[in-house]
Amino acid sequence: MIIVMQHGASEAQIQSISKYLTSRGIHAERLDGHEQTVIGIVGKSGGYDINAMATMPGVQEVVRVSTPFRLAARTGHPDDTIITMPDGTRIGGDAPSIVIAGPCAVESYDQLRRTAEFVRNLGVRFLRGGAFKPRTSPYSFQGLGFDGLELLKKIGEEFGLFIVTEVMEPAHVPAVAEFADVLQCGSRNMQNYPLLRQLGNVRKPVMLKRGAGATVEEWLMASEYILAGGNQNVILCERGIRTFETSLRFTPDIGAVPVVKKLSHLPVIVDPSHATGQREFVGSIARAAIAAGADGLMIEVHHDPDRSLSDGAQTLTFEQFEELMGELVRVGDAVNRPLLVEPFNHTPAFSRREPSPTMGVVEPRAK
Amino acid sequence: MIIVMQHGASEAQIQSISKYLTSRGIHAERLDGHEQTVIGIVGKSGGYDINAMATMPGVQEVVRVSTPFRLAARTGHPDDTIITMPDGTRIGGDAPSIVIAGPCAVESYDQLRRTAEFVRNLGVRFLRGGAFKPRTSPYSFQGLGFDGLELLKKIGEEFGLFIVTEVMEPAHVPAVAEFADVLQCGSRNMQNYPLLRQLGNVRKPVMLKRGAGATVEEWLMASEYILAGGNQNVILCERGIRTFETSLRFTPDIGAVPVVKKLSHLPVIVDPSHATGQREFVGSIARAAIAAGADGLMIEVHHDPDRSLSDGAQTLTFEQFEELMGELVRVGDAVNRPLLVEPFNHTPAFSRREPSPTMGVVEPRAK
Amino acid sequence: MIIVMQHGASEAQIQSISKYLTSRGIHAERLDGHEQTVIGIVGKSGGYDINAMATMPGVQEVVRVSTPFRLAARTGHPDDTIITMPDGTRIGGDAPSIVIAGPCAVESYDQLRRTAEFVRNLGVRFLRGGAFKPRTSPYSFQGLGFDGLELLKKIGEEFGLFIVTEVMEPAHVPAVAEFADVLQCGSRNMQNYPLLRQLGNVRKPVMLKRGAGATVEEWLMASEYILAGGNQNVILCERGIRTFETSLRFTPDIGAVPVVKKLSHLPVIVDPSHATGQREFVGSIARAAIAAGADGLMIEVHHDPDRSLSDGAQTLTFEQFEELMGELVRVGDAVNRPLLVEPFNHTPAFSRREPSPTMGVVEPRAK
Amino acid sequence: MIIVMQHGASEAQIQSISKYLTSRGIHAERLDGHEQTVIGIVGKSGGYDINAMATMPGVQEVVRVSTPFRLAARTGHPDDTIITMPDGTRIGGDAPSIVIAGPCAVESYDQLRRTAEFVRNLGVRFLRGGAFKPRTSPYSFQGLGFDGLELLKKIGEEFGLFIVTEVMEPAHVPAVAEFADVLQCGSRNMQNYPLLRQLGNVRKPVMLKRGAGATVEEWLMASEYILAGGNQNVILCERGIRTFETSLRFTPDIGAVPVVKKLSHLPVIVDPSHATGQREFVGSIARAAIAAGADGLMIEVHHDPDRSLSDGAQTLTFEQFEELMGELVRVGDAVNRPLLVEPFNHTPAFSRREPSPTMGVVEPRAK
Repeated sequence: MIIVMQHGASEAQIQSISKYLTSRGIHAERLDGHEQTVIGIVGKSGGYDINAMATMPGVQEVVRVSTPFRLAARTGHPDDTIITMPDGTRIGGDAPSIVIAGPCAVESYDQLRRTAEFVRNLGVRFLRGGAFKPRTSPYSFQGLGFDGLELLKKIGEEFGLFIVTEVMEPAHVPAVAEFADVLQCGSRNMQNYPLLRQLGNVRKPVMLKRGAGATVEEWLMASEYILAGGNQNVILCERGIRTFETSLRFTPDIGAVPVVKKLSHLPVIVDPSHATGQREFVGSIARAAIAAGADGLMIEVHHDPDRSLSDGAQTLTFEQFEELMGELVRVGDAVNRPLLVEPFNHTPAFSRREPSPTMGVVEPRAK
Repeated sequence: MIIVMQHGASEAQIQSISKYLTSRGIHAERLDGHEQTVIGIVGKSGGYDINAMATMPGVQEVVRVSTPFRLAARTGHPDDTIITMPDGTRIGGDAPSIVIAGPCAVESYDQLRRTAEFVRNLGVRFLRGGAFKPRTSPYSFQGLGFDGLELLKKIGEEFGLFIVTEVMEPAHVPAVAEFADVLQCGSRNMQNYPLLRQLGNVRKPVMLKRGAGATVEEWLMASEYILAGGNQNVILCERGIRTFETSLRFTPDIGAVPVVKKLSHLPVIVDPSHATGQREFVGSIARAAIAAGADGLMIEVHHDPDRSLSDGAQTLTFEQFEELMGELVRVGDAVNRPLLVEPFNHTPAFSRREPSPTMGVVEPRAK
Repeated sequence: MIIVMQHGASEAQIQSISKYLTSRGIHAERLDGHEQTVIGIVGKSGGYDINAMATMPGVQEVVRVSTPFRLAARTGHPDDTIITMPDGTRIGGDAPSIVIAGPCAVESYDQLRRTAEFVRNLGVRFLRGGAFKPRTSPYSFQGLGFDGLELLKKIGEEFGLFIVTEVMEPAHVPAVAEFADVLQCGSRNMQNYPLLRQLGNVRKPVMLKRGAGATVEEWLMASEYILAGGNQNVILCERGIRTFETSLRFTPDIGAVPVVKKLSHLPVIVDPSHATGQREFVGSIARAAIAAGADGLMIEVHHDPDRSLSDGAQTLTFEQFEELMGELVRVGDAVNRPLLVEPFNHTPAFSRREPSPTMGVVEPRAK
Repeated sequence: MIIVMQHGASEAQIQSISKYLTSRGIHAERLDGHEQTVIGIVGKSGGYDINAMATMPGVQEVVRVSTPFRLAARTGHPDDTIITMPDGTRIGGDAPSIVIAGPCAVESYDQLRRTAEFVRNLGVRFLRGGAFKPRTSPYSFQGLGFDGLELLKKIGEEFGLFIVTEVMEPAHVPAVAEFADVLQCGSRNMQNYPLLRQLGNVRKPVMLKRGAGATVEEWLMASEYILAGGNQNVILCERGIRTFETSLRFTPDIGAVPVVKKLSHLPVIVDPSHATGQREFVGSIARAAIAAGADGLMIEVHHDPDRSLSDGAQTLTFEQFEELMGELVRVGDAVNRPLLVEPFNHTPAFSRREPSPTMGVVEPRAK
């Protein structure tokens, strides 16, 4: 932490800061410049109140040097976190990018089974589906609840799909963890601390969606609650932020992908469905996310989106999803980060080009 | 709802929309213009999926005509909601503007008592204090919990103060309702629907803080969850929004005060402490809020803010708070919305000017 | 400037920074902490590229300590700038708050004269009116141009009103300065540097509107262009910023008033008409601005706003403006910053309460 | 345009709207619903003031149906605009994506020549370089002016590169058009209407950068000024928007690429250098833009960025640029939109994989 004193701060004011720190057992260095004095605490933070210091007489500004998140930070944890599922499927680091696909909400056994079968045959390994739905309006469909969880588990087992589903209440965490393979903490609950603490207590992976109004730093601080609870399996999910631009439902923050990769070791995926809110834009953002280096995607797909009970407008049809998967495979290959494609029947749905030693390599230029 | 067809939408596409609506028992009117056709449903919404219609072939845009909130809307409830406390103190409508004051967090009996006594003597009737604290960092002080609630209740009774305190978990709602007179739903939990539903089940007033990234419409939709549960005593609290401007912690959205007043019948107050994050700016925003027509304020004050355990930088000293109260009384009088000032000892701390028939009245101008 | 090295930055990397600075004749201090090293340059900035340093190997972050604006900063110019008009009317500092009123655009002699007479009789001293109009659409009315300027000048002289009008092109500045008493630089041109430079060459006051997407810092940097040209008479004008909230045309940033007052010595006024875009909300924001300490307001008024050629929706009727002036006088008095009210015929339109020694004063509380 | 009347609007109010329209020769249709009346004008807009109508008594809301831009809209101009350079190089539509590369500012003949030669050998056909620099601070390097233009022209001719450079003043447009092949209108001047009008008078292509605080609609409206002047050769350039997220200099709005493609026929490119402000993030955003379907990129590159006179932090080194070009070629191929790569010496710098009939094609899945 660095305390910048005002131009013309008095010696007494400077001494008073020093005393405040010394009395808390903190060693500080002082730097007297031509116009201003600066006091530096270069070491562990803690033991003082950064905001309180900012309002002390003579202080111009207090600058935080270290990041406020510790366990989520790449500093001190330089290697990428790679999350390993029970069958060895890996998420993050150099593992293939994953696709999580499925309907917004679980509606019925038939609906879920059709979608599950379809995406599985295209090589998808993670099935999403909401049983508890956070809806802006109390008059909208709120989900099937635990009945939905049972359907998810049954179908997940049938097709060898990992289940990703949202949990909304701290008290539900243990029960949902029985059914789900990955627990989703929704965007609206990113700073629901009792829920985050409960998610720190389980050992299954947690997918933490970014709040629409949350900075990257706040998002990483939220993950810190889960990590501090002892659960190291956190996947971050960018899903669009709230800006002045309203042509899409949210503004997909593709820049957050490389930013998170720099600041943190945690895997980060992108949800182009919620970020855009309109199915015609899902493909562009999905391809962009993979090109930017995301560790995966979460995409809504439904056998009949116009009759789906929630978020139909942003949900892809089977046909659109199949076409997009082909594009994503190619983009993944282009950026040397292949997409995870493991069809159930072991017949790849997409042909891949053979790796070639010259492909995309820059040759010496003729002078 | 109005469905605007694209230029050149085919007759078949238009018919297909009509059929969709007719099959759901909805009567629609059709308007054929020179270049485009428009289909209008002017009546009760519901029975159709607005988003799904937006993606049907030939549709350019679907425009929602009625507001999505019903119980919170001024339409159908033209009179202001006035919340009455057990002793007859009223909030909203033409009632005097209230001030809720107190420390950010309950720290100790002594701290709370000193602040309570001080603000009560200045005429404040509502004491705030956090027992459960939502903190961005898991390493910050998280509040005294139920011990804090007991301190609040005890001191509230001693000084005749109504207690305003936050509840963070659905499961805690009944217990917190035992101690608090007004239950606060924090900004980070504005869309925590299980919590909102529980708050709809109690009958004590709920103060619903706006999410930093939430539109006014989403905020009113959140209040709808509480109202739909049967609790009509909702107070809205604006506390700053997230924008590109970072000179203050948040951007105080003073414009939201008259906007909410127009759209809804619910009382709306402003929290200048969290909105600014710095005590030197609290006064300006507090005065602005009263001048703009807010039904009240929530202000943080502490006997020694620089030693407070949370948010010290935005907390006023006793001296600053006393000075601000004087200013607020004068601004309230200026806009014909006096501030509620009821000192415990029945001796007004502020002298008021006598109302005069000519004061501020525009006289006929000399021609 | 403070350079924070990464955890684990090598000694060679630290030395390399030092060499870069020494080679530019800059003296730096080094601070070795437990985990990180910090290099401080506490003195005049300049001579180095702050962004280039940020990307040098081993550097975590470069923190700017001094503000990037110099002439606009309160540091080094602690006293408020007070702008004095030819007749002695003052703007800023402890001078009464001014009101600039008039139609959005100059439409005709009759229109302008009616409005001028009306507002002058209410005590307004500054008349606004656009002759060159920046319109979002090329198909909207673009203003009367120099004909409009002549009307403004003529009517300004007739009623003893100072003329405030916008100039849009660098080449027009000298000509517009012949007609106007205050030259307005519009929001869309806040970073039109050739225009700002020309405005630095004149000696009449310049009102610099904030860009809707500009930070307070960028706004002050823009004023720096005018100040650096030698024109010290800059009035800042807040007019709403672009945020995710769309219930008003822009989000009025009332917090910018005290923030600018702290960072700069320049006067700052507020334009509630453009900030809200709807006449029903102009009054709330105007009152809030005065309560927050603004040095003045700019308000659109028209004898028949629904027939005005531009921005009619945000323009007050005569009746609304008269009522608002009465409210503003009272709020100004309440915050001890009276409104400038100087009717042409020297008959005050508003009766003021007499100052009283006890008014609003906090009396000793009975113990 | 659709006028939605309030619940309970009186028949007289409805009639008054009808009269207003009829008196302007506008035919309107009326729709009486259960709760509200709606008045529709489905045809050409114009002849009425949409804002004025919004404030008429009894009106709840006025909804614009047609887009406010005409010439820029895809409606009425369904085919993509393809801009053809003198040698037949095409921009937009199905033409290969272009890369515009070069230093932020022209500094010297040697600097520019080195960069030009380097990027040309990698196949780049468009050279950027600022001669007139809009700088936030008046104390920063402001460009070489016309001397810089001469250097650009000379080097452009030497290497067969098209010159892209910014013009900041309306009066400079004809002169800059002598030197440049593409005239850039900068982000800060997006709504500088006198400048846009001048750019409508030339016939060389104009690259219009989006304002950091401008919506997509405002950006298209700005292009309308140029198109309405008779210049159909407009290239849009997204360069990051201003949001609450500050981890990058701006928030790259990748979603704007498909949105613009839908609303308009104009080509749209992305500037990842200004959007991110940090060279380490340029690659991710450049790849994402191509994956999302951008018609091109503008990227800053310099032989020694840390010594460049402006924006060094966001400028790539030669090595980084070469690596990125290889990645972009591969991503372009993956999305079936190859990058334009035409090395001067006709020796391709990048080997491309041969197109194969099976590559990326979805094969029938085994059942």
